[in-house]
Amino acid sequence: MKIVIIGSGNVAYHLAKAFHEQKVAVEQIFGRNDIDLKSISDELNIPYSTCNLSDADLYIIAVSDGSISEISKIITKENCLVAHTSGSLSKEHLLGDYRKASFYPLQTFSKSKKLDYAEIPFFVEAENDEDLKSLQKLAQSISEKVMTSTYEKRKYIHLTAVFACNFVNHLFARAKEISDSQEIPFGYFLPLIQETTEKISQLEPKLAQTGPAVRNDARVLKLHEELITNDEQLKIYKVMNESIKKMYEL
Amino acid sequence: MKIVIIGSGNVAYHLAKAFHEQKVAVEQIFGRNDIDLKSISDELNIPYSTCNLSDADLYIIAVSDGSISEISKIITKENCLVAHTSGSLSKEHLLGDYRKASFYPLQTFSKSKKLDYAEIPFFVEAENDEDLKSLQKLAQSISEKVMTSTYEKRKYIHLTAVFACNFVNHLFARAKEISDSQEIPFGYFLPLIQETTEKISQLEPKLAQTGPAVRNDARVLKLHEELITNDEQLKIYKVMNESIKKMYEL
Repeated sequence: MKIVIIGSGNVAYHLAKAFHEQKVAVEQIFGRNDIDLKSISDELNIPYSTCNLSDADLYIIAVSDGSISEISKIITKENCLVAHTSGSLSKEHLLGDYRKASFYPLQTFSKSKKLDYAEIPFFVEAENDEDLKSLQKLAQSISEKVMTSTYEKRKYIHLTAVFACNFVNHLFARAKEISDSQEIPFGYFLPLIQETTEKISQLEPKLAQTGPAVRNDARVLKLHEELITNDEQLKIYKVMNESIKKMYEL
Repeated sequence: MKIVIIGSGNVAYHLAKAFHEQKVAVEQIFGRNDIDLKSISDELNIPYSTCNLSDADLYIIAVSDGSISEISKIITKENCLVAHTSGSLSKEHLLGDYRKASFYPLQTFSKSKKLDYAEIPFFVEAENDEDLKSLQKLAQSISEKVMTSTYEKRKYIHLTAVFACNFVNHLFARAKEISDSQEIPFGYFLPLIQETTEKISQLEPKLAQTGPAVRNDARVLKLHEELITNDEQLKIYKVMNESIKKMYEL
């Protein structure tokens, strides 16, 4: 199966790298950003282009959601499979006369951070069994956790991931603002953060909750609100505490 | 130095266990909850009492913030050191004619979850150098990361920890509500959650941000708001996305 990856961002890079590590040949990486494409091409020894799309059996479109429909139109070949990597778009957002599919890796990707691809859950969806099987086989070449998923389910997987990853990372960023403001090294908090995460592989998150809100400690909540000087931090502080109290009916 | 631990909750249990593992003798664990005290006593082979407080050189009060002042009054001995483990109370909340101190472990404690005590940062504070040194020495017997800290700094350490741990765990609990509602196994999200945490030991959280808000993807934000049916989830969703946009000036 001849594979082309379209895109040069975090997801495109890591997919190309995962295939490269498993000796799955990628014919080309194609996209708009010459500099990023060249950098991936140099590292992984994959040809790239910004203008001539190579012929392939499978095109994986790993670009931001807003660009998927537009870029999907450049594939004029009909007898091929086209998959996007979005958690929040149906495969019908691909606009062409080819067979359509979804190839969704549930992970947060940053170019500079190495990943263990075998641990990443992949969710695949296709129009027919044959395409589904070939996408499953491809995903299984890089990951031990390959599942099928409809768009109806996938969008909830993505929503859950936003809470469990994107918002969590933002809390780390806001936490660091606070510790930075008092010249407290953020490194002090890394064992606590690691433990917070480790704990939930053994304990239900609801049972693992600690802190002033779940103890309904009004004095500490008031003290913290007085310490916070940043509007966004304060809004988060109040909403999260109210939500904790509601969950435990305090 | 004769040590008594007052309390039978998560912090009291783990401190007693950490001392036990390092063969630091604890004379007694003292508290109100007979059942919890007996369970700790049986596991760690430390005498316990709910009525007769043993004589000691150091009393460590590991109870909830709201009970510290009250329970601190039962120590009538004057020539002794009394420390509490709270992140949000000054040592002056200890009400007695003894020497006062703070012995604050920066970690989230659940009884059923094992911990590597050597990794837990301890922040100590005392009225004089001698007491400070003996608390540092004691903390160093269980941890490799012992620092001094005033109350002024400690309360910001605790506030940061609320964002980086308590709120993060609550996001996991709300995320699980969403995945449970769609019968999606929460285990799928554990590699993502682990990576979210690992990433910030190598990358500034602000640089590690991914997701629809930082991409300013209005379509996905709207889609997610339509998928959410729970009021608290929706409030969190909106506040977090607004805060992300503000941080990146989107």
